Amino acid sequence: MTAFDDLMTFQRDTEALRLISWRLGWDQETMMPKGAAEQRGEEMAAIEGVLHARRLDPRVGDWLEQAEPQDEVQTSHLRHIRRDFDRASKVPADLAATIARITSTAQGKWAQARSDEDVAAFLPVLQEVVDLKRQEGAALAGNDAIYDAMLQDYEPGTTGAQLAAMFDALRPELSDLRAAIREAEAPAKLKGTFDETKQLVLSEVLALTFGYSLHNGRIDKAVHPFSSGSGHDVRITTRTNPQDPFNCFYSTIHEVGHACYEQSIDDAYLLTPLGRGVSMGVHESQSRIYENQLGRSRAFTGWLYGQMRDAFGDFGIPDEEVFYGTVNRVNEGFIRTEADEVQYNLHVLLRFDLERALMAGDLQVDDLESAWNDRFEADFGYPIDKPSNGILQDVHWSVGLFGYFPTYSLGNVYAGCLHAALRKAVPDLDTHLAQGDTKPATTWLRENLQQHGGLYEPRETIQRASGMEPSEAPLVAYLKDKFSGIYRL
Amino acid sequence: MTAFDDLMTFQRDTEALRLISWRLGWDQETMMPKGAAEQRGEEMAAIEGVLHARRLDPRVGDWLEQAEPQDEVQTSHLRHIRRDFDRASKVPADLAATIARITSTAQGKWAQARSDEDVAAFLPVLQEVVDLKRQEGAALAGNDAIYDAMLQDYEPGTTGAQLAAMFDALRPELSDLRAAIREAEAPAKLKGTFDETKQLVLSEVLALTFGYSLHNGRIDKAVHPFSSGSGHDVRITTRTNPQDPFNCFYSTIHEVGHACYEQSIDDAYLLTPLGRGVSMGVHESQSRIYENQLGRSRAFTGWLYGQMRDAFGDFGIPDEEVFYGTVNRVNEGFIRTEADEVQYNLHVLLRFDLERALMAGDLQVDDLESAWNDRFEADFGYPIDKPSNGILQDVHWSVGLFGYFPTYSLGNVYAGCLHAALRKAVPDLDTHLAQGDTKPATTWLRENLQQHGGLYEPRETIQRASGMEPSEAPLVAYLKDKFSGIYRL
Repeated sequence: MTAFDDLMTFQRDTEALRLISWRLGWDQETMMPKGAAEQRGEEMAAIEGVLHARRLDPRVGDWLEQAEPQDEVQTSHLRHIRRDFDRASKVPADLAATIARITSTAQGKWAQARSDEDVAAFLPVLQEVVDLKRQEGAALAGNDAIYDAMLQDYEPGTTGAQLAAMFDALRPELSDLRAAIREAEAPAKLKGTFDETKQLVLSEVLALTFGYSLHNGRIDKAVHPFSSGSGHDVRITTRTNPQDPFNCFYSTIHEVGHACYEQSIDDAYLLTPLGRGVSMGVHESQSRIYENQLGRSRAFTGWLYGQMRDAFGDFGIPDEEVFYGTVNRVNEGFIRTEADEVQYNLHVLLRFDLERALMAGDLQVDDLESAWNDRFEADFGYPIDKPSNGILQDVHWSVGLFGYFPTYSLGNVYAGCLHAALRKAVPDLDTHLAQGDTKPATTWLRENLQQHGGLYEPRETIQRASGMEPSEAPLVAYLKDKFSGIYRL
Repeated sequence: MTAFDDLMTFQRDTEALRLISWRLGWDQETMMPKGAAEQRGEEMAAIEGVLHARRLDPRVGDWLEQAEPQDEVQTSHLRHIRRDFDRASKVPADLAATIARITSTAQGKWAQARSDEDVAAFLPVLQEVVDLKRQEGAALAGNDAIYDAMLQDYEPGTTGAQLAAMFDALRPELSDLRAAIREAEAPAKLKGTFDETKQLVLSEVLALTFGYSLHNGRIDKAVHPFSSGSGHDVRITTRTNPQDPFNCFYSTIHEVGHACYEQSIDDAYLLTPLGRGVSMGVHESQSRIYENQLGRSRAFTGWLYGQMRDAFGDFGIPDEEVFYGTVNRVNEGFIRTEADEVQYNLHVLLRFDLERALMAGDLQVDDLESAWNDRFEADFGYPIDKPSNGILQDVHWSVGLFGYFPTYSLGNVYAGCLHAALRKAVPDLDTHLAQGDTKPATTWLRENLQQHGGLYEPRETIQRASGMEPSEAPLVAYLKDKFSGIYRL
């Protein structure tokens, strides 16, 4: 046994334990009895403790020093393991424990403040979280910017400056497009109610249509849709709302994008650091291209229209063309998670700029609400009406997730690049999509991206698949073209 | 922090990790996608590895040496932890690993042999398992008998001789009763089919009737009914068969007995060694008294008859009295798990005597089949027709579970003692049971037994609750009285 072999044997159990911890998370949202919440907290803490100790195990440091990679795959394994080990080693144990304790409290205070519309009740604990995370960031950053260090947890290899360059180019394009759309005539809105059992049946059809394997997964209902797991056990959840079947269908397709990425990774990487999606941004590129560029395309919505007519009868939309507009209707609103393709990234870019300034010390917690409200009105054209629609909207900051938000938009940017390349590679894609056949697209994505798992760094993963340097340009071109058509701009 | 406190802090995480491992087992039988089996094997091995390392952690040995218990509860905690630590320390690591590997293979060979009715294909691997388990038993036993050492895994404090004395007194009574019943006129058989969805609805009613909390549990379908978990998250499974609703109802009540024991343990013992049922035998006493002495009583079946009439209409049984006979009908058969109250223990006693002789070296694996077949015919009055109805019937021996079988009958014996005491304590119990009210019984069991968890040793647990030295006599008296009535002996 070489040091590399020893390291990989140790890592295999770590990966298995990580999967167990994720499955507990799944269970908590889908199956757990209500009265088990407190006990579950202790169970989660116990397995997190085991994982934490393994990350810091001094043998890992020794093995990393001695291991001599023989090929590209082994080099990549070592890069992942070294990154985790270095990160765990840099943060003092008492700081990590304090962050875990305070963010757990902060999440409860955030939820209460949101329900009370009481920003002042939330800001003191947010200040604590920000201070602690900045300490953690400083421990991680060395000479680099704190925010850049944080980004590595979600999107290794990227920097705040790199993202800002992309997003600063994206923002005016989106804002202009949004303004033009606001002046134009809107497509028909969906009306009526849609049987929830039938929604779930069609949602499973959609999952299978996009290549999700129920042999290696399952679909359940949960309050928030999510995908969970890796390898041969990747589960998704969805939800239903009688007034809004699109929420069910497109949540499902979105999670199927995440899940198919995990299910498609080369079996040789199972229970290794390469056996999961390489970053949040690349993951989001898969969920978004499934959901939007494929699932909300004119061709696919034509097929979906037929499926919905079969399931629900006449639901008041006269034909495929109108239906395409209905699916892609741009509505006024405040909530990120409910936003359409045009406005979604504006929500994210706002958060990115604010949290980056917070971490740099250029924005104070006390000024956060007015900064949020000013920026929102500038980008969207109307003011925030209440804190739950503004600064108290998302859980992320309360639990210390700084650096997470931008991966949503990065995923959209990546999806734009991949979509441009896919259209070139499969010129007759729409003919297939119009028949509910996503295979040419999902096969292309599997072969060019998904199968590689964590083999390449995130940006390189996108470069190799799309054949281009990642940029916002393809996404902008796609959105302009699509919404100019729908809104006759 | 004293050594005792340190030990308990460490143990708390161990208990939490053990619960996680159990929950994975539950998931595997209820929710896991089919294609995830192999990956799950690695996940289970990883968490078992963590648990094994914790059991052997040298700090535990140090803490055990230094800890000074301040009261009865602390003394009991230390007894449990010391027993686990000593057991883990005594078995050489390579032997433990070999047993894990061979029993995993053996289970597959057993399943194949059973399906092929091919005893010869199973005996070689059974011989390996027996040899290995005897080695393990010798490592554990010191100067004691190997089989006695094995019993400690399931029923701490008991000995083979103690059990044999009980069972040798029980066996002729059961065999005579069975023979007399065979000559008498049998009650009506249940006929027809019963809607499976309605079975599940009534099965949930039964679970709630017996005090199972869905706030701290849930009911799912699985191939084999089981109860899983401790504390605030105790889940059960059941199954349905259109021809046999009693299977569903009484499986549910049985598992509810196990589950209510776990749910009723004092909250102060949560995530400690006292926070789970104290032994297999005591656990089985709870499942059996719920299922049989309460659930199959004349009074309760009278209420159940009404429930079944409400759910299924007229199902061909004219009145409560006939229904009571139908529920308790003694059928000829070969299968332990399908046996009635009279014959069940005969199945178990056969296995107990054979496995005890095997472990003592008084019976050879090559002679096992003829020993089984001879004994079966002597006890039941008809010969074994095929190996799957005889020696290949149960999985236990293939996976090395020697010493497990007798806890089933010990549970019945204990249930007999508890039932006698319960009837004295609650003279009007039948009035309640006849109205579907089990509360006087389940409250008595909770207060006198279940709440204590692992505080007392198993035998003492039964002594304290029943106020008597455990013996087979109350069970024999109960069975004679009950079946003399039903069969007019």
